[in-house]
Amino acid sequence: MSANWGNNIELSIFGESHGPAIGIVIGGLPAGMKLDMDEIRWFMKRRAPGQNQMSTPRKEKDEFQIVSGIRDGVTTGAPLCAMIENTNTHSKDYSELKVNMRPGHSDYPAYIKYHGYNDVRGGGHFSGRLTAPIVLAGSIARQILLEKGIIIGAHMKQIHHIQDCSFPVDIDDELLKQLSHQMYPTLDDQVFIKMQEEIEKARMSQDSVGGIIECAIAHVPAGIGNPFFDSVESHLSPLLFSIPAVKSVSFGSESIHQMYGHEANDAYYYQGDQVKTKTNHNGGITGGITNGMPIVFQVGIKPTPSISQIQETINVQTHTNTQIQVKGRHDPCIVPRAVVVVESMAALGVLDLLG
Amino acid sequence: MSANWGNNIELSIFGESHGPAIGIVIGGLPAGMKLDMDEIRWFMKRRAPGQNQMSTPRKEKDEFQIVSGIRDGVTTGAPLCAMIENTNTHSKDYSELKVNMRPGHSDYPAYIKYHGYNDVRGGGHFSGRLTAPIVLAGSIARQILLEKGIIIGAHMKQIHHIQDCSFPVDIDDELLKQLSHQMYPTLDDQVFIKMQEEIEKARMSQDSVGGIIECAIAHVPAGIGNPFFDSVESHLSPLLFSIPAVKSVSFGSESIHQMYGHEANDAYYYQGDQVKTKTNHNGGITGGITNGMPIVFQVGIKPTPSISQIQETINVQTHTNTQIQVKGRHDPCIVPRAVVVVESMAALGVLDLLG
Amino acid sequence: MSANWGNNIELSIFGESHGPAIGIVIGGLPAGMKLDMDEIRWFMKRRAPGQNQMSTPRKEKDEFQIVSGIRDGVTTGAPLCAMIENTNTHSKDYSELKVNMRPGHSDYPAYIKYHGYNDVRGGGHFSGRLTAPIVLAGSIARQILLEKGIIIGAHMKQIHHIQDCSFPVDIDDELLKQLSHQMYPTLDDQVFIKMQEEIEKARMSQDSVGGIIECAIAHVPAGIGNPFFDSVESHLSPLLFSIPAVKSVSFGSESIHQMYGHEANDAYYYQGDQVKTKTNHNGGITGGITNGMPIVFQVGIKPTPSISQIQETINVQTHTNTQIQVKGRHDPCIVPRAVVVVESMAALGVLDLLG
Amino acid sequence: MSANWGNNIELSIFGESHGPAIGIVIGGLPAGMKLDMDEIRWFMKRRAPGQNQMSTPRKEKDEFQIVSGIRDGVTTGAPLCAMIENTNTHSKDYSELKVNMRPGHSDYPAYIKYHGYNDVRGGGHFSGRLTAPIVLAGSIARQILLEKGIIIGAHMKQIHHIQDCSFPVDIDDELLKQLSHQMYPTLDDQVFIKMQEEIEKARMSQDSVGGIIECAIAHVPAGIGNPFFDSVESHLSPLLFSIPAVKSVSFGSESIHQMYGHEANDAYYYQGDQVKTKTNHNGGITGGITNGMPIVFQVGIKPTPSISQIQETINVQTHTNTQIQVKGRHDPCIVPRAVVVVESMAALGVLDLLG
Repeated sequence: MSANWGNNIELSIFGESHGPAIGIVIGGLPAGMKLDMDEIRWFMKRRAPGQNQMSTPRKEKDEFQIVSGIRDGVTTGAPLCAMIENTNTHSKDYSELKVNMRPGHSDYPAYIKYHGYNDVRGGGHFSGRLTAPIVLAGSIARQILLEKGIIIGAHMKQIHHIQDCSFPVDIDDELLKQLSHQMYPTLDDQVFIKMQEEIEKARMSQDSVGGIIECAIAHVPAGIGNPFFDSVESHLSPLLFSIPAVKSVSFGSESIHQMYGHEANDAYYYQGDQVKTKTNHNGGITGGITNGMPIVFQVGIKPTPSISQIQETINVQTHTNTQIQVKGRHDPCIVPRAVVVVESMAALGVLDLLG
Repeated sequence: MSANWGNNIELSIFGESHGPAIGIVIGGLPAGMKLDMDEIRWFMKRRAPGQNQMSTPRKEKDEFQIVSGIRDGVTTGAPLCAMIENTNTHSKDYSELKVNMRPGHSDYPAYIKYHGYNDVRGGGHFSGRLTAPIVLAGSIARQILLEKGIIIGAHMKQIHHIQDCSFPVDIDDELLKQLSHQMYPTLDDQVFIKMQEEIEKARMSQDSVGGIIECAIAHVPAGIGNPFFDSVESHLSPLLFSIPAVKSVSFGSESIHQMYGHEANDAYYYQGDQVKTKTNHNGGITGGITNGMPIVFQVGIKPTPSISQIQETINVQTHTNTQIQVKGRHDPCIVPRAVVVVESMAALGVLDLLG
Repeated sequence: MSANWGNNIELSIFGESHGPAIGIVIGGLPAGMKLDMDEIRWFMKRRAPGQNQMSTPRKEKDEFQIVSGIRDGVTTGAPLCAMIENTNTHSKDYSELKVNMRPGHSDYPAYIKYHGYNDVRGGGHFSGRLTAPIVLAGSIARQILLEKGIIIGAHMKQIHHIQDCSFPVDIDDELLKQLSHQMYPTLDDQVFIKMQEEIEKARMSQDSVGGIIECAIAHVPAGIGNPFFDSVESHLSPLLFSIPAVKSVSFGSESIHQMYGHEANDAYYYQGDQVKTKTNHNGGITGGITNGMPIVFQVGIKPTPSISQIQETINVQTHTNTQIQVKGRHDPCIVPRAVVVVESMAALGVLDLLG
Repeated sequence: MSANWGNNIELSIFGESHGPAIGIVIGGLPAGMKLDMDEIRWFMKRRAPGQNQMSTPRKEKDEFQIVSGIRDGVTTGAPLCAMIENTNTHSKDYSELKVNMRPGHSDYPAYIKYHGYNDVRGGGHFSGRLTAPIVLAGSIARQILLEKGIIIGAHMKQIHHIQDCSFPVDIDDELLKQLSHQMYPTLDDQVFIKMQEEIEKARMSQDSVGGIIECAIAHVPAGIGNPFFDSVESHLSPLLFSIPAVKSVSFGSESIHQMYGHEANDAYYYQGDQVKTKTNHNGGITGGITNGMPIVFQVGIKPTPSISQIQETINVQTHTNTQIQVKGRHDPCIVPRAVVVVESMAALGVLDLLG
């Protein structure tokens, strides 16, 4: 099913972009955990729109209310429901979008699936805005993981053709913390300027660009995961593919399929009592199970489908070919805002795997 | 959980490489379906080892017995259990493998997870041999799908650095049928010779290579799938990542994250009454739901971790660094045999999605 | 997991008795369904407290807000979230309840499970109040079922030792509709007066009584359900046991285990083209699958654990035996209010089974 | 789905009464557990048919082969598949059963569901014989539970109208062990003679009788289970209703719905450091969560539907009313053989709940 996820941590999301509110129910949280609300707000701010010209001008403060599951800021063990009101919705005319299908969007598949009854305003339930409650849930998951010593961080590995470096084999905890407290995290400080130029260029051409986000999860103990249907890769990938615009997921080195076996096989060694590998081309997972090295993965994000250029499309009412020009507020590149969403999904996936 | 999968079609796999047998239980099959045993055997032959020097010399005919769920070759609607006996097991000494962890393999994670009790002979339950019952189940799924007009085919898109072409936008049904009846399917007839040379080169160097398999699923109707947690991508990816050695999955064009929005947005048009797109960079899926175009995806496969070269590793008994030389029968490249496994997982995933 | 349920219909409940609100997320609803809000309100009124002296004096209008999943009163196909604010909460002192465990309540098990962090005010997440959103969801399910011709009704079969008649073999549709529009449905008009006296007697003694609710689901087609783990009984029973205070569930005739085989075997016959049975001791289900006769089942409800008498118990802080007198507003018998909850669970269970 | 069950322990059953074999796949078992094969055989013997005139004369030794998941008698952590060959199948003529539906059996619902393709020989997949692999799985579960101190035992509480006593509040471990090592366990030694007479009387009249089995699970710690959808009752009941012929399940005292609140509320007290209740009318569960007292429940079993008397029924081929006389080997009462099945389901359910 589509709105629910999880075995040990249960997620249920709801809401439409222009409805009264969006939100999430999170079951399976431990009781007695003091939530760090400031940190939740910080992670949500990283995702929030309207902070600069690289993102949609729609301003949403994404202020949330926790409706259940906490008392005096401490979890009770009951399902936690958090809601975010939709305050900045434009009540413009959406009648064109009901019949002219935007290319690259959910419009046409949703029109068929829901027989035209889906809410198309602002993308409805398909809106990237639904990732706000995911980040909220992910922020809570990260706090639980941190108590187990598990740290998560990600960076923009690529925007259009501009590339950042990859994570090194040994990933410093401080680096991950630092990345997760940046609005535009890159490993190479200089590369973001070029990325910004690339995004601006796309924006000026009424176009958009995509990219790659690389994420690392450090200190997951060895022996977590399963062979086959619930391998770590199998467990995390559906969450990552749930993020709108994600079209690819790879674990370890992106180029591992082009390596020779003697390169791809990460050699084990003891560093004191600790088992490590000299390289980490397998991204901390072999046979579907963690080996104790950082879990590393990349997600590929397509360019935002909302662009202002005139595009060829169909009118499903008249059954004719036509053109569409999508107006409104769009991100020329959602990669920067998606970094914290990827981290959040990673946190939720690992927390669920830990059982 | 790891051994079970599915909502509408239920899979449960079992067995170890050197145990008495491996097998699968398939629940949720429709009653009254006449199974085409020859086709099942053909698909299993495509995966079976020992057919030439590109694959492990271990010969297993992979003859299966259907223990339940059919009568007179017709499904009864009860769970179908199929078993494959392990006939060609070498009772060699596996004591070294219990302590010296093979790099790139499941050995070390499994050692930690199962406290050393896992069966290491031939990879035990982690063996690629467990994909034989998957192919059997997938072959049945394909027969059900074919009655709905859905056709699946795949080709070796890349081996090491040797590349085949990509699927065209319009994929001919005959092409898919033809591909799925080849032992070494490529779109470009000439490219396999080079791939073969590459594999042979690796074999001669006691090394191995990986590659990419591209798969297409044609004629899935528009409107199948869901937003978020059960998007088509989210539904198929765990199955694909269950295949041993798969480290990446991408839907649509592999380079979509490097495109501009105006390129990535597949323009809709009516061809008669039928809705089509001029390009298919989104691989038949937008917003997590099918748009009626072929579902196209790629899986990246790492080089076989079993290589005969001496490798650095650890001894978990003595807690010391050591070396290992993995003897025995290995595939220098499992990509050719994995093609039908990818097709099978695709079939099972789509059948389950159709509900 | 505890907060989520369902394969085709997805439920996720949240909220605590004295928190800001309670609610539910319902996934998997068909798009394009016009909701009959008056009927939803009627069903919720049947469950609402404070309507007479048989129920707790706490008055809650149970007014709900639909936060997502509908537009202009029509379902969009996206998850529907409905919320009910908690308006009438008494901010009395709950410190005694944190340490003195009420017998028959969730207090002690919850104290152990949640390490004392659970919200004890008004029963917290364990409150019977959480059945309000269940009734809301069930009301929607009933509207969908009604379009398929399926009708649900229930009656108070027993309160304490006062018994109503059982459903006849042929259950008239009008009877079920009529029952579901009564506040105190019984088959025998006279019996409710005696039941009322029994409840009043318990109330005057600061005591409580329980009883049995019998429910019928008419016109479920034959062939629905499965052998073994997803039998109709297996599918419905967890929902019914989710209702606070339900301690038993039986399908068909309550006394079937005391019959002889020749009595218990419901004889088939053709009535025109329609297959019927002369008796319905199996409650419309044999082999876990429906046979086309009405599904009939009973749920046994224990007396409300909240009574004002002094009771023996423990203090978990001082680790000593002690006494407790539970003050506050209680139902001397929740059976009348639980009828619509049972019907709602039945509706949700059958809708999910129909797939 | 019907063939699979479980969150932490995964079950998948397969097989038909007259097919080559029946079996089960059990996932999620811990690695490194030495299986006590003698005990497994003992429990299976308790269920096996043909041991005396109270059960069907079909003799099946129910010898099993473990196909995967163990090595040298010790679990490997991989899915355990166990198979039981069907050796004693009568190849008699089943053509009448294909068209004349046996009352009280799965025949008619299955005929509709599977469009006549289901295997009707010996009940096919619906056969009570499928409980043999359940007992095997349950026996393994019991060994795991025993290491945690959890002990399970059951007795025949009622056969037709002959009643045994109920479990006392304090249930001695020795009593449970003793019960589970009897073929015909009752609390009152004398009562079985009367039960036997009752069964014999039914057999002589070509009839059958049912009854009630009461089961206790001692030493499950307090705090296990959940509110609502995954209450202990909700978790166990689907397993119990999966047992063919079970039509009712009640937890705690069967008569709790007829008690007053002051009786039904089990008073807590400290016995030393241990929390106990003076009565156990709630069967060790309040609010869906264990309170540390023994979990006690009853299952009601209908009389065996297979009786040799002439019965009224329908012919689904000719669409006419007709009569049927069911020949063959039947149990006049399956209660004695079902005791160990109930214990097994209880063991599997609790093991899964413990996570």
